[in-house]
Amino acid sequence: MSHLLQDLPPGSLDYYRKQASFDWKRMKVFIDTEDGIKFQNNLYKKLQMHPEFLGNPLLQTLDEKRNKATQQALAYASIVKSLTNSEITTIKREDIILRTILQFNPSAAFKYPGIKRLFTSALQNQGTQRHHKFIQLAESGKIYGCFCMTEIGHGSDTKNLRTTVVYDKEKGEFVVNTPDFPAAKCWAGGLAELATHAIVYAQLYINRIHWGLHGFVVPIRNPETLLPYEGVILGDMGEKIGVNGADNGFLIFDKYRFPRENILNRFADVTPEGNYVTSATDLKNVRGAVLGALSIARVTVTAKSEFYGTKALTIAVRYAAVRKQFGPKDEEVSILEYQSMQYRLLPYLAAAYIIRFFSMYLDEVTQEFVKESKERNDPALARRGMEIHVISAGAKPVSGWTFRDAIQECREACGGYGYLKASRIGDIKNDQDSINTYEGENHVLIQQVSNWLLKVCSNVQNGNKISTHLKSADFLSNASKILKNKFNATSVVEVCKVENIIDTYQWLVCYLLRETKRKFDALKQSEGSFWARSNTQIFYCKNLSTAFVQHLFLQRMITVINRSPDANIRNVLLKLFSLYGLYNIEKFLPSLFGGGYVEKPEATNLVHEAVLTLCRDLKNDAVALIDAIAPPDFLLNSILGKSDGRVYQRLQIALIRSSSEASRLKWSSETVGKIVNPRNKL
Amino acid sequence: MSHLLQDLPPGSLDYYRKQASFDWKRMKVFIDTEDGIKFQNNLYKKLQMHPEFLGNPLLQTLDEKRNKATQQALAYASIVKSLTNSEITTIKREDIILRTILQFNPSAAFKYPGIKRLFTSALQNQGTQRHHKFIQLAESGKIYGCFCMTEIGHGSDTKNLRTTVVYDKEKGEFVVNTPDFPAAKCWAGGLAELATHAIVYAQLYINRIHWGLHGFVVPIRNPETLLPYEGVILGDMGEKIGVNGADNGFLIFDKYRFPRENILNRFADVTPEGNYVTSATDLKNVRGAVLGALSIARVTVTAKSEFYGTKALTIAVRYAAVRKQFGPKDEEVSILEYQSMQYRLLPYLAAAYIIRFFSMYLDEVTQEFVKESKERNDPALARRGMEIHVISAGAKPVSGWTFRDAIQECREACGGYGYLKASRIGDIKNDQDSINTYEGENHVLIQQVSNWLLKVCSNVQNGNKISTHLKSADFLSNASKILKNKFNATSVVEVCKVENIIDTYQWLVCYLLRETKRKFDALKQSEGSFWARSNTQIFYCKNLSTAFVQHLFLQRMITVINRSPDANIRNVLLKLFSLYGLYNIEKFLPSLFGGGYVEKPEATNLVHEAVLTLCRDLKNDAVALIDAIAPPDFLLNSILGKSDGRVYQRLQIALIRSSSEASRLKWSSETVGKIVNPRNKL
Repeated sequence: MSHLLQDLPPGSLDYYRKQASFDWKRMKVFIDTEDGIKFQNNLYKKLQMHPEFLGNPLLQTLDEKRNKATQQALAYASIVKSLTNSEITTIKREDIILRTILQFNPSAAFKYPGIKRLFTSALQNQGTQRHHKFIQLAESGKIYGCFCMTEIGHGSDTKNLRTTVVYDKEKGEFVVNTPDFPAAKCWAGGLAELATHAIVYAQLYINRIHWGLHGFVVPIRNPETLLPYEGVILGDMGEKIGVNGADNGFLIFDKYRFPRENILNRFADVTPEGNYVTSATDLKNVRGAVLGALSIARVTVTAKSEFYGTKALTIAVRYAAVRKQFGPKDEEVSILEYQSMQYRLLPYLAAAYIIRFFSMYLDEVTQEFVKESKERNDPALARRGMEIHVISAGAKPVSGWTFRDAIQECREACGGYGYLKASRIGDIKNDQDSINTYEGENHVLIQQVSNWLLKVCSNVQNGNKISTHLKSADFLSNASKILKNKFNATSVVEVCKVENIIDTYQWLVCYLLRETKRKFDALKQSEGSFWARSNTQIFYCKNLSTAFVQHLFLQRMITVINRSPDANIRNVLLKLFSLYGLYNIEKFLPSLFGGGYVEKPEATNLVHEAVLTLCRDLKNDAVALIDAIAPPDFLLNSILGKSDGRVYQRLQIALIRSSSEASRLKWSSETVGKIVNPRNKL
Repeated sequence: MSHLLQDLPPGSLDYYRKQASFDWKRMKVFIDTEDGIKFQNNLYKKLQMHPEFLGNPLLQTLDEKRNKATQQALAYASIVKSLTNSEITTIKREDIILRTILQFNPSAAFKYPGIKRLFTSALQNQGTQRHHKFIQLAESGKIYGCFCMTEIGHGSDTKNLRTTVVYDKEKGEFVVNTPDFPAAKCWAGGLAELATHAIVYAQLYINRIHWGLHGFVVPIRNPETLLPYEGVILGDMGEKIGVNGADNGFLIFDKYRFPRENILNRFADVTPEGNYVTSATDLKNVRGAVLGALSIARVTVTAKSEFYGTKALTIAVRYAAVRKQFGPKDEEVSILEYQSMQYRLLPYLAAAYIIRFFSMYLDEVTQEFVKESKERNDPALARRGMEIHVISAGAKPVSGWTFRDAIQECREACGGYGYLKASRIGDIKNDQDSINTYEGENHVLIQQVSNWLLKVCSNVQNGNKISTHLKSADFLSNASKILKNKFNATSVVEVCKVENIIDTYQWLVCYLLRETKRKFDALKQSEGSFWARSNTQIFYCKNLSTAFVQHLFLQRMITVINRSPDANIRNVLLKLFSLYGLYNIEKFLPSLFGGGYVEKPEATNLVHEAVLTLCRDLKNDAVALIDAIAPPDFLLNSILGKSDGRVYQRLQIALIRSSSEASRLKWSSETVGKIVNPRNKL
């Protein structure tokens, strides 16, 4: 393996590296595969030689940030093309491609491959042969597409979107119109400055008959000049909290015309004569198929949160290993030795591993689904699409919130230096923050999981066995048996066991599902189903969905652990498994007591002791665990988290650089004299 | 009251305003007092007329932000001076002065009154008559002071600070020196560009004998030119995540000399002959007195988190009242009607009220203490200083973390619009983030509380009665009785009762204290006291300190509620009390079950139902509760949270403004043609 991976530079991190219970290079090969690492090495080499990727300066204006992101996205597309040579790339390589550019500059990742994937996958899954030309043009870079669903007045509530498309039989064209400002399409990435084509979702009308929401591909800018066409009013969402290199825009149509062929007609079409045609059999399967296919983007976002989180954790774990403060007597110790620091960082490190493995798996099964669903269209596939939709709708918020908190903890763990812009944790935090809103608002998304589980539950209650393609909910068939289980561990070792953790989660999901159903059914009588759903969200639906998703994460982790031939790796991954499980189970203790799964008060102490024991056990592996997943130094681009551990030296250089003129006010001519007496001012 | 407060403009918020169970103007007068509101009105009028406060543009460069903050701080100082006319200001007015400038521009608040207060209060409390000239010069604006404790290599661990001050008997001067870069003083606000004098903490040596850490006032820049003196090397910490208008700097001394008189000699002095003089009696009381006095700054920071949080909550609650989405059938409803939105925002609104009342109280008792401690110096006062130190050391992190989470929830509650820079929530979030690190790192601070409680606990175990000046821990005298209590509420109404919530908290503090002591004593045997302390932080010390502080918040709230003559106000404040208490008790359920206080599983459901019932009950009061504490529109400066509820109209104006040139790339000349084919690029 030594030919694939270089040793990391010696320095202050050596102490912990020597303590590690496993070989970080073997771990990295286990995670990324030999092919993946070779690909990564080539990619890194090209990036480091390319002028667009020399350093990553702190840009200040919106223009600079957008320009940089675009140039980097273009350069990156070329680099990737030169490496893949049009051969079909593997999912592992795709993961590396997205991870690398996102960890370097998230805004560039939005521009490539982010938006492109959203645009072409909509065409592929909802369009037909006649839209292939758009895919080809987008692939070859002749046009640039964006995705317009959300409007100013309506986001998640897509049924109430108000953009209209009317069919004009005389001219054989569609006319798209924005009735007022709240109906303007907004937020689409690429729309403000770059996009030449938009996938637009609008209410279709033919002869004044309303046919509901449909997708269209609409040319909006001239690809040669990038000027908008007449009838298309384009605007800019302006500065955001983060990802400011991405140009999110808004779009107003003034009775703008486009060809009839541009309706995405896989499931329904309009004939030249103005007839609406669809197959009823197909229609029944549409929702699952479309939702399954649209999941692709959300699966990517689940992974993205982990990319951000891993970057922040790299900085914080290495800083905590290098930074020394208070110790016993006059000795100083690394702050990573403090129990509180271990508890603040290590559960998130466990989450980074577990969610990484899960995202890769979810990407795989989703891509398989998309491929198959291009070829056929049946109820089994629709159900499979729905399951994928539900899992991705749950995984994205759970991952998003986990790493939102992880990054904040990393910021605080690095103290004041974490608050320096040059640590980059602020940027990571502000960029990741967007994830909890876009590609499906988190609270809206996570409801999809409980909605689906409630349906599944009715099936179980009717005596049916659950058997889904991904087996995500099959255990619910045994709900009545599972609900009889009790927490019976009596030692920390027992509490940490895989079976115990899985049992606890299965009981929790079954219990929360039963209770949610019970409460929902009761409220439905008095309040109707809308309010019944709203009034079961907190402590019921949301906890249910969260527990369900975490259980899936853990199940996947077991499969992954069993695949490793290296006992040391299996051993440390098992500890990560238990830490992630118990850290989260601890937060569910009120329900575990409340539902009677836990009966003895001592359980609280046992779970607490187990979490702290695992933290302590993993502390010496933390640096090596980071080494196996850390972005290389040139991607990290932080003064704190480099692999050589030279924190203070870099800090000194950074501070001296930022001080070149600081010993005197740059704007002093207007201030000297005033500071001497503020009364001068008034 | 109508002469003091104008009606708020009519609009989309009217619906909720009419539902309110109390009069928001009466509530505002109750909180701010008539004198306070008059003062506020005058202050607002002056601010709105002053050119420095016209709008608050989104500045981009560090220079612009720092210049703006300085100019605003100077202008603000003058305005405040013109309003107070050198009469002694009340604590309420001081709160309004700080709140107003912080909600307008936190960086300006750092420059005035922030840093000034830190500098002069150190001189007042650790200096003597001979340092009064510095206070006068600072008050009149002739010099500008900063506070230098932290070094690059050591922050919280002040014992290990490494800057040295050596007394040179020949010349009767001190020589201050920075041995290397890690010993550079850093982070001090005002140091990079403005400060003419620094309070410097350094290890004192006389004739090679080490006398420990002492404070000195050291001239560092020429007040006429703002150029640093020879031997003083000043630098800039550079760009930060937030508060970039504050110029945090670093400071290196190269054997720099300053007068012997500049040692802060209240507790220890150096004679011209080089004798170290101190009174042993005094020395015993020094720690408490100094810590008590230093608390002033930390008390301010506790309040600051609430100022930030209240601003964000104003934006989010009003947005949630105006934004309509999904509803039953075809009707749309305000998202504030959703249970999940209520649960996400209302407990933080309760925290804003409760922590606001508490901070004002803490400020009062701290200022009283400081005044008295200037006059005398005895063991009782030292104990009182220690208690104030401990309470402020706990209140600051609990407040800081609460509003950190509150602001993030507000950002997410406003969806994509919350992510727009123009919503200002991003700035609030990034500015507030600093609070969890500066003025004492949160995790280090909160340990002071448990350390103190453990000492108090030993006293109780020795059979002594606890009776402290602020009575914060007096209930611990009854620990053995309290520990026999059980949770015995059987209905939501009972769970919400004041006595039940207070009983639960008191049991929790007694229990966590007993368990922490037990674990600490056991570990001390095997690991020594340093590691015993470290290894009792999670689930023990930190939870203990948090519960102790929240109990103090709640106790204060009871006093406040009882003072209101208006039943409607008492009623809504009681609901806020119960919601804050139960929302946090819910998170302590594992310990409440684990320690046997709660025995029946149904308690979980009861607490959950109580929290949700309170949320629902408070929903119609939310807008009025905000009106009573909201900053006025010109301070809020957000497109989302204005008092007229015109969200979409403001959004439209903001978006159209940010789009003035956006329909075509500003940097298009370099990009058109490349976007058409990314291959051109390589």
